Amino acid sequence: MSSGKYGKLYGVGVGPGATDLITLRAVHILNSVSVLAIPKSSEHLEPFAWRVCSPIVRENSSQEKLFLHFPMTKNPKILIPAWDKAFSEIGKRLEKKRNVAFITQGDPSVYSSWSYLLEEANNRWPGIEVEVVPAVSSITAIPAILQTPLADGRERFCVVPGTYGLKDLPELIRHFDTIVLTKVGRVIPKLVSILKELNLLQNANYVSYGTTDRQKIVKNIETIQNENCDYFSMVIISIRKRKGALKGQNIETE
Amino acid sequence: MSSGKYGKLYGVGVGPGATDLITLRAVHILNSVSVLAIPKSSEHLEPFAWRVCSPIVRENSSQEKLFLHFPMTKNPKILIPAWDKAFSEIGKRLEKKRNVAFITQGDPSVYSSWSYLLEEANNRWPGIEVEVVPAVSSITAIPAILQTPLADGRERFCVVPGTYGLKDLPELIRHFDTIVLTKVGRVIPKLVSILKELNLLQNANYVSYGTTDRQKIVKNIETIQNENCDYFSMVIISIRKRKGALKGQNIETE
Repeated sequence: MSSGKYGKLYGVGVGPGATDLITLRAVHILNSVSVLAIPKSSEHLEPFAWRVCSPIVRENSSQEKLFLHFPMTKNPKILIPAWDKAFSEIGKRLEKKRNVAFITQGDPSVYSSWSYLLEEANNRWPGIEVEVVPAVSSITAIPAILQTPLADGRERFCVVPGTYGLKDLPELIRHFDTIVLTKVGRVIPKLVSILKELNLLQNANYVSYGTTDRQKIVKNIETIQNENCDYFSMVIISIRKRKGALKGQNIETE
Repeated sequence: MSSGKYGKLYGVGVGPGATDLITLRAVHILNSVSVLAIPKSSEHLEPFAWRVCSPIVRENSSQEKLFLHFPMTKNPKILIPAWDKAFSEIGKRLEKKRNVAFITQGDPSVYSSWSYLLEEANNRWPGIEVEVVPAVSSITAIPAILQTPLADGRERFCVVPGTYGLKDLPELIRHFDTIVLTKVGRVIPKLVSILKELNLLQNANYVSYGTTDRQKIVKNIETIQNENCDYFSMVIISIRKRKGALKGQNIETE
């Protein structure tokens, strides 16, 4: 119970997919709030974030599981009313001073629907107490699976949506040691042709559903360019010409 | 006990600083291996990563706590023999088929000394089984504290060591919505002057020792430009002109 006019609102990241990659803080919050707000994109599928964290949520009949519909579309005429309805449902609970945890897959600061709720919160519920609970992001979970660091020493990395970053890819490759492309599902054929031209095809790895039992790793992305790639997928391009600087090899250029 | 010639080697991230931001998987591994390898940079200070995770490591007299000295210098004449000695100590345990967890602050894929051990492992102990355990990185923990997302929709972000990225900063700002500068301790004065010129001083936030009880947030970095800034510090420049794309506002440009 919060001391203010409203309950406390949490944005809780549940990590990339494996239940045991949830943090101790998230476990505690998911089990102590009176409302779990769970975004779902379809009436028919169990939401991914809920599948990840439900094994650690203890049976508790006084805790409400509030499923909220966030349709998978970019059409603002469908999106905006759906979001408004979801936020109103959350608001009804906050106004009763109930603490609400909005669960989000991955980390709440990285391409998360939580960011829209965060932005709305102070407009809708002035003075509300908000807490963001960071999580393991697939940005680092996938490199852990591939056993290839993102960066060390004086290296740099960037994270770009595949859908919007391919035009600049040759330039990104000049400036960065590792390039993480998210949302790559539909751009694999174009990506293959760009990387071939740059002679970097062998530096790219594709991972979908990383850390879950559906995890798929593809070392040669040319083999999947005609497939329908998954939504939860990522390509990491690892060049890393500056690696090893800390060990002294490149010390003279630092 | 591993089935191969050697014990299993884990690189375990313990997160950005708060003990309860450790994952369930890390808790399990830190409590089940027979050797905890703990890097320390000084004889006099308790290592940061150990301070973070020691509260969750249970008393276990059969578990060895192996402190390894990694000096804070860039001089290869000091560094290389120290690393070699540390790796040999780890190797002695692995050769006895003992499982070793090398603990690392933050995430093992992001500017971690683990990356050097990972690179050496297969050369020193051919065929060894290695597992990298990802963690909450300060790259997302700091945005959670600041309650400012790194990216949503079609946004992009990059992570650059402050020491090496300032020259390119104006160009990075043209291409990215969020720029994370690590290792900023000594470059704050130069950073202030660049950001002033770009009229972006108010878009920068400094955080040191994020998520710990020593956490310090500075919203106006001009006020600290003459201070000795901490090693565990970061500046996040948040511009985010493309934010909100998923809500439909910028739909026509996508």
